Amino acid sequence: MAARVKAPGTPPSGAAAPSESGAFLAACRCRPAAYRPIWIMRQAGRYLPEYRELRARVSFETLIRTPELAAEATLQPLKRFELDAAILFSDIMTPLEGLGVALSFEPGPVVREPLRTRAQIEALPELVPQRDVPFVLDTVRLVRASLPRGAPLIGFAGAPFTLLCYLVCGRPSKEFAAARAFLYTHPADAQRLLERLSDAMAAYLAAQAAAGAQALMLFESWAGLLAPREFAQFALPAVRRLVAALRGLAVPLIYYVNQGAVLMPAVAGLDVDVVGVDWRASLTRVRRVLGPDKAVQGNLDPAALFAPPEQLKRCATAVLDEAGSAPGHIFNLGHGIWPDTDPDAVARLIDCVHEYR
Amino acid sequence: MAARVKAPGTPPSGAAAPSESGAFLAACRCRPAAYRPIWIMRQAGRYLPEYRELRARVSFETLIRTPELAAEATLQPLKRFELDAAILFSDIMTPLEGLGVALSFEPGPVVREPLRTRAQIEALPELVPQRDVPFVLDTVRLVRASLPRGAPLIGFAGAPFTLLCYLVCGRPSKEFAAARAFLYTHPADAQRLLERLSDAMAAYLAAQAAAGAQALMLFESWAGLLAPREFAQFALPAVRRLVAALRGLAVPLIYYVNQGAVLMPAVAGLDVDVVGVDWRASLTRVRRVLGPDKAVQGNLDPAALFAPPEQLKRCATAVLDEAGSAPGHIFNLGHGIWPDTDPDAVARLIDCVHEYR
Repeated sequence: MAARVKAPGTPPSGAAAPSESGAFLAACRCRPAAYRPIWIMRQAGRYLPEYRELRARVSFETLIRTPELAAEATLQPLKRFELDAAILFSDIMTPLEGLGVALSFEPGPVVREPLRTRAQIEALPELVPQRDVPFVLDTVRLVRASLPRGAPLIGFAGAPFTLLCYLVCGRPSKEFAAARAFLYTHPADAQRLLERLSDAMAAYLAAQAAAGAQALMLFESWAGLLAPREFAQFALPAVRRLVAALRGLAVPLIYYVNQGAVLMPAVAGLDVDVVGVDWRASLTRVRRVLGPDKAVQGNLDPAALFAPPEQLKRCATAVLDEAGSAPGHIFNLGHGIWPDTDPDAVARLIDCVHEYR
Repeated sequence: MAARVKAPGTPPSGAAAPSESGAFLAACRCRPAAYRPIWIMRQAGRYLPEYRELRARVSFETLIRTPELAAEATLQPLKRFELDAAILFSDIMTPLEGLGVALSFEPGPVVREPLRTRAQIEALPELVPQRDVPFVLDTVRLVRASLPRGAPLIGFAGAPFTLLCYLVCGRPSKEFAAARAFLYTHPADAQRLLERLSDAMAAYLAAQAAAGAQALMLFESWAGLLAPREFAQFALPAVRRLVAALRGLAVPLIYYVNQGAVLMPAVAGLDVDVVGVDWRASLTRVRRVLGPDKAVQGNLDPAALFAPPEQLKRCATAVLDEAGSAPGHIFNLGHGIWPDTDPDAVARLIDCVHEYR
């Protein structure tokens, strides 16, 4: 066991013990919290030796589709670190398999038959999560039953435009050229696909909340491909539709917009509780644009975890300072943690965030 | 020959014939021009059938290293289209071979021994362009002797931080994780490498100007990896050093900053003539931040070339409108043209830009 691991239930040094609802959910609602909450995108993943052990036994697909194992992966970082939230271990492409899209992971997701025609788009069945992805909902239930320190569980889905990128291109790419060209060559088909994905992800997220997820996060990982005009024309209406379908639920909604600093004025109009941003955005400016009613999540550069301890502390403190003292900041990285990160650096980062006043 | 090709020397329909110095150089200096000039990043490339024919005969490396062939590739788009500038056909990695860095193209550049130690950095020899990359200078001379319509020739180099990304990582990647971690783990070594690259590229660009290049462009293709703080700490001082070394030359300097919308306040302090930006930046805002003495270059989404003609025209007009009527806008894409672009769409785009009033 690493030197920095503390026994479950131990409050962060110098901080009040987290309540059942906890610092994370308070920050989501822009309410005061005893300390700045932190969780880390991809906190369950390859940088953890215990995760690599799990993966040595089973494939990524099997891991995701086996509730006991997916729950174990979800809980691993919570057992090792004093994180303030768990996030479901899954993949944004998983519910698309429920829609009949044949996928493989090589290791990035590869769609066997990319979607390019109206007929393919209309032929996508409705997603019925209880029938199509029951293992995800079982994972949520298992995790909820075992979470240490009353930490809340975040459910998630890919945002419609980000899913469209994979579905139209067929595989990850730097430019997602085919997807972006599709928006220009077939705007009506693109909009129809986005609507269908919006409805499917609304059903998927609502089912996660019903199974016990206490916050819901949408990943717009490829927002940075779009100019503000195309973001407003394609990505944003699909998110608005999705958010409208979920607004009746009692859980906070988080919209993560990667490389979206220039998109914040458009995002400000969305009825979400939290906006997540990457390290290229200034949190001070983002908060000014979003206004006092939206919380922000982010945004340390994942590369900063490679800095010597004092320098990492300076970088983390700069993020905390930039977010300001008003309630409503959830500390996170600006993007997923890298596989070769030292877990001890993560432990130091969490202490630094919890000790910040 | 495609229907839209016009005979060399024919002025754009409805516009005055370009003068010897031309609309491009006037715009670089923020001086009035008869029409909005346009050239296209990667205008010599795979979307052109004549380029694919050339490449069917020789490898990319041979093409770059053979002045007659590199000059032919440089001139191909100028013969087909009424472009207002040519850009040297080469690769940002080419001068690094002159520094003794062993490279292959697979097809992206791969560095045989990535640079990670101070000893490797100090062991880089000084670049003497006449000795180390004479074929580049011969290409510049050949192109200058054959340019149609008095179109000027742009020489170029990679910006130091962008070159560091390739040198430290060894190959292109989405995140350039090793390079970004290097900035945090070895900041002094990173700064030393940036200085050395800055000096080498200053010598390289000065030699291109001496051989006849009429404008010099620096490609900061990976600026978007850096938060404003790290951009200001690493990338910017290296560019400032490079610009200071070139400022005595009589040619305009262009700094292309990919994904750099949030970096413009830092870029505004650089003593360059033109700043190039991608399609995610608002040209109106960029011009406001940069002030009236800097020209801007960009910024149509390369995906827009896949739109139907009327829609492409609307997109191009939006860029022209956003740049405003003050002198000092050079039309371009926001990034390199995609290999599967229809050359006829390029011809339509050029007409649209030249006819804009």
